[in-house]
Amino acid sequence: MSTVSKVSVATKRILLGRPFRSDRLGHTLLPKRIALPVFASDAMSSVAYAPQEIFLVLSIAGLSGLVFTPWVAVAVCVVMIVVVASYRQNVHAYPSGGGDYEVATVNLGPNAGLTVGSALLVDYVLTVAVSIASAAENVGSAIPFVSDHKVLFSVAVILLLAAVNLRGIKESGTVLAIPTYAFIFGVVTMLIWGFVEIFVLGEDVQSETADFEIRAEESHLAGIAFVFLVARAFSSGCAALTGVEAISNGVPAFQKPKSRNAATTLLLLGAFSITMLMGIVLLAQQIGAKYVEDPAQDLVGAPDGYQQKSMIAQLAHAVFDSFTPGFYFVATVTALILILAANTAFNGFPVLGSVLAQDRYLPRQLHTRGDRLAFSNGIVFLALAAAAFVVAFGAQVTSLIQLYIVGVFVSFTLSQTGMVRHWTRHLRTETDPSARRRMQQSRVINSVGLVMTATVLVVVLLTKFSEGAWIAIIAMVALFILMKLIHLHYSTVQRELERADEESVLPSRTHSIVLVSTLHLATRRAVLYARATRPDVLEAITVNVDDRDTRKLVSQWEASDISVPLKVIASPYREITRPVIDYVRRVRRESPRDVITVFIPEYVVGHWWEQILHNQSALRLKTRLLFEPGVMVTSVPWQLNSSDRLKNRDLQYTAPGDTRRALGSDPDER
Amino acid sequence: MSTVSKVSVATKRILLGRPFRSDRLGHTLLPKRIALPVFASDAMSSVAYAPQEIFLVLSIAGLSGLVFTPWVAVAVCVVMIVVVASYRQNVHAYPSGGGDYEVATVNLGPNAGLTVGSALLVDYVLTVAVSIASAAENVGSAIPFVSDHKVLFSVAVILLLAAVNLRGIKESGTVLAIPTYAFIFGVVTMLIWGFVEIFVLGEDVQSETADFEIRAEESHLAGIAFVFLVARAFSSGCAALTGVEAISNGVPAFQKPKSRNAATTLLLLGAFSITMLMGIVLLAQQIGAKYVEDPAQDLVGAPDGYQQKSMIAQLAHAVFDSFTPGFYFVATVTALILILAANTAFNGFPVLGSVLAQDRYLPRQLHTRGDRLAFSNGIVFLALAAAAFVVAFGAQVTSLIQLYIVGVFVSFTLSQTGMVRHWTRHLRTETDPSARRRMQQSRVINSVGLVMTATVLVVVLLTKFSEGAWIAIIAMVALFILMKLIHLHYSTVQRELERADEESVLPSRTHSIVLVSTLHLATRRAVLYARATRPDVLEAITVNVDDRDTRKLVSQWEASDISVPLKVIASPYREITRPVIDYVRRVRRESPRDVITVFIPEYVVGHWWEQILHNQSALRLKTRLLFEPGVMVTSVPWQLNSSDRLKNRDLQYTAPGDTRRALGSDPDER
Repeated sequence: MSTVSKVSVATKRILLGRPFRSDRLGHTLLPKRIALPVFASDAMSSVAYAPQEIFLVLSIAGLSGLVFTPWVAVAVCVVMIVVVASYRQNVHAYPSGGGDYEVATVNLGPNAGLTVGSALLVDYVLTVAVSIASAAENVGSAIPFVSDHKVLFSVAVILLLAAVNLRGIKESGTVLAIPTYAFIFGVVTMLIWGFVEIFVLGEDVQSETADFEIRAEESHLAGIAFVFLVARAFSSGCAALTGVEAISNGVPAFQKPKSRNAATTLLLLGAFSITMLMGIVLLAQQIGAKYVEDPAQDLVGAPDGYQQKSMIAQLAHAVFDSFTPGFYFVATVTALILILAANTAFNGFPVLGSVLAQDRYLPRQLHTRGDRLAFSNGIVFLALAAAAFVVAFGAQVTSLIQLYIVGVFVSFTLSQTGMVRHWTRHLRTETDPSARRRMQQSRVINSVGLVMTATVLVVVLLTKFSEGAWIAIIAMVALFILMKLIHLHYSTVQRELERADEESVLPSRTHSIVLVSTLHLATRRAVLYARATRPDVLEAITVNVDDRDTRKLVSQWEASDISVPLKVIASPYREITRPVIDYVRRVRRESPRDVITVFIPEYVVGHWWEQILHNQSALRLKTRLLFEPGVMVTSVPWQLNSSDRLKNRDLQYTAPGDTRRALGSDPDER
Repeated sequence: MSTVSKVSVATKRILLGRPFRSDRLGHTLLPKRIALPVFASDAMSSVAYAPQEIFLVLSIAGLSGLVFTPWVAVAVCVVMIVVVASYRQNVHAYPSGGGDYEVATVNLGPNAGLTVGSALLVDYVLTVAVSIASAAENVGSAIPFVSDHKVLFSVAVILLLAAVNLRGIKESGTVLAIPTYAFIFGVVTMLIWGFVEIFVLGEDVQSETADFEIRAEESHLAGIAFVFLVARAFSSGCAALTGVEAISNGVPAFQKPKSRNAATTLLLLGAFSITMLMGIVLLAQQIGAKYVEDPAQDLVGAPDGYQQKSMIAQLAHAVFDSFTPGFYFVATVTALILILAANTAFNGFPVLGSVLAQDRYLPRQLHTRGDRLAFSNGIVFLALAAAAFVVAFGAQVTSLIQLYIVGVFVSFTLSQTGMVRHWTRHLRTETDPSARRRMQQSRVINSVGLVMTATVLVVVLLTKFSEGAWIAIIAMVALFILMKLIHLHYSTVQRELERADEESVLPSRTHSIVLVSTLHLATRRAVLYARATRPDVLEAITVNVDDRDTRKLVSQWEASDISVPLKVIASPYREITRPVIDYVRRVRRESPRDVITVFIPEYVVGHWWEQILHNQSALRLKTRLLFEPGVMVTSVPWQLNSSDRLKNRDLQYTAPGDTRRALGSDPDER
């Protein structure tokens, strides 16, 4: 349903801001082949770091631990299948694109929704931090200089992304598609080439780390301790699931049939992710690749100053041993898709903020779009927070990932709980047997999803809490409380504004006062405009800040054709604000039923430094006058020539993330 | 003449801001005994550092140089006498208190005036830097810890002074009087006691530095080089003259007869300064006190880690050898008067800014007083600039003083030139012989003053340019250019505002638009007020940012008793500003002769964070609407309960420096 027809339902007094044909909106909707890269870059990019984290954790138990990598990867894939299946139910049930926040709010109440909101906000920050840190590692695998300055590189990329988004980028689906498909192509080609070399050509493909031995920190782990280690590896591997929920937020941007296309895209995403994840893990094991937390200490046999490559880079290096461009290609597209994933967060963060603002959990103005300032604040906040995490954790993917997936799984779990409730509620009223059957089937799928994600959440909390997850939890709780307080404030104000005891009586008369400092065109216009409003009393006042100036003004005024009387207000202390306030209060005391309008001529300028040179006294007076009851303040602008340069600037702004909200991908349509 | 009667001359349509009796103003005028400390603390405090600088420079030539100290001091005193005599003419000729800036502007034109203005602005910064650095040295003479951390101490005191002035201190003449008279009392007692001990009691009073020998840097200076050194000593000694011009700025604050009282106070200042200066130099020579640039290197015989005391501290230490409280008393009052001198600059700087602003060399709002923000900016700027100088020069009085007196003597010289012109001009028209005789006499005095100050200026430039004076000169030139540019901007705008081609025709009709987001009391009030202005067309508009909200609003509106029609404006991209601007432009296109008034309900809140939560969209829209010609923007405020706390805050502010401008020393009178 288009915006226009919806409004028609609401009221017939419709007026379009500008000619706008709703059928044009269709142009910007995304076909599946574009929607996949637009929404799935985040989820797919996580296969760049999830497998190596499994290796890293298991390597603590030495080679005996590494035997379990494929099984941990299989477990992660099972969770992936269940989550994809569950979210396919979500996109059918909630085609509006509200995502987990909407599902939780509608089915579980505002507190559950707000919990999801807090979790997702923290998640966006960590998406940027983890993705960029991982990108730095992958670039560093090819360029040693970057490897030596990971933090610097990461912060620079984050600031660059922020700058690009602040500038108001025009995303096109095509531009987003290239790195994503290139990544899929690069990784899949590498995997096939590698397996062909090994199993078909029988070559001896070896990772550069194959000859190193792992110095196991705990080589004789047994029983519970070993299970705990495998669980930790599994938790880290579940990082591969981050971003899967993005498609459920983007349903409105899909071509029709929206829900079905979104569901299909989810399936594609799952298939690609699982293929790449399993492929990477199996190939890595085959060629003896190793990935440890601290190569200098944990690897025996490594040369001095050995720089550990990322797992993907190790594979590419081994597979494309005799074809160096292949190695550089894989490293490049991996870094690109990771940066793209971070960019996704820069789009998603302000959008989520806008949804939360609509429900009064964040400042209201964040709700309106096309609002440069609101978006800017979000982008700057996200960039600073992500940069802070990167600096605090030295751009170490392994450390950052400990904080990462808590938020994701809090959101997954609450969303699945909400979906189970959703079906239960609908089943209460639904009578059509086939519909009931479908619903029951969906409920089963979501229930399995709930059990699975809740289990993973518990495992993640148990294994990661002390490793850093507590930081993410504190951040979520703090955000939750802050948003609760904002909501409380808005509610209080709303009650204040709905008091019934306020008289709504039309003021008996209008008393207009034009503030004059010198007699020039801006003043004349203010007087003319004030007269045009035909007030009961109209007078001009000037504050005698300087005797010479005042005398000159008065004689000019008397010589002019202006028929409005000019009053001079004494200001023994050469102030402006206080004498005017005192005068206005006196007028108000004398006729309390009147409404007073103060007309202030104001210059409109084009440079910030001109703003310093003009209007300052007027602005301050205006601010103070607003504290007086029964007074309106009218600005009569005078556009100085320099103002032209700013006139239309704010009207030409493309907010980031427009594509994924099916908005204005073509500037001609705006 | 009181403010009130002056305005009566200008116009009969007078209205007093509040009951205000002009006779009360007399209460705040200063008798001579209070005026002296209020205006002369700056000038008198300079005897705390001027004598030691003479010793310091001459010690470069060793003991043979020190022989000349009394003669250099005498030369400084001669200049002092001439300058005091000259300024006595100024206060008679210009009782308005404009000071050097006014004298130069009126007689020599705006560029000369602006040169004086720039020089004085730089001077205020250096007054703070030099005075506080000297205060740190004097405190350090009593408390070694401060001596070890001079920079830290100085910056802390500057920030403290800034904070006190930002807070809006209530100066009373009495409070200012105590440290000044205590300083005079302390120094004069010390001198008398010292001379009595030596010449009456015949005691052998010796400075702790008496036994050290000076390692002369250039022991065999002869001819030009020696003359140059003496000239440098003289230049440094002339620092004693800084602040003499302050009285000429303060004439309006004196009791009647103002000019005569000011002239007498000048005489008193001169007498005290000369007495103390000569007394210090003679006593210092008598007891063999020494003061060098680098005690570790220049003093032979000094123990390791010897901390050099300031000259005044050395005298006090020697004189009050057996009476320690005397030493601490002198050190304390010296530090106090120096801090008071710095505080003078914190008062004078914004006042000079206000004078320059009146002539459009600085942002206009600086002209109005009782304007917290304008004063705050000046205070913060002064404090930061002074702190920067202190840090850059390591709080070394000797280094800072090189920059200091250029500005003073630029101002002296231009002022005296102006005075000569003044008398010449008046002599052209004056016919009364006795008046002519007085004028000719004054002209002679000012001519001597001109020759003297110009000579000193040349000497200062020759001897100090490379020592640091060039920095002060660059700062003055930069300020001069900046103020010229600001003036140029204002002139351009004024021409733009006085174009004759603007039609001044009353708009034919008024079209009022009330902006609505939700229907509550603030909105109702805005509609009522808008109706009270009886526009030709009145309509309410709402921007459809959210379908659900809009539908709710429309149904509430239809159910309410409001008769004003509500239009819904589509906003496909969920913006507010653009659709409203487009709508307003369309209305304007349809009837270009109308004036459009946009009523915006606005919340008035009491905390900055509430401001973040409210009005942001409204504010942005308001700003944008001002760029549209033919549109007025009216704020209809709704005072939320929290706004009470701010309501009267800005109206209770006492600006620094009120006392010296004869303003509001009694809060009851305001």
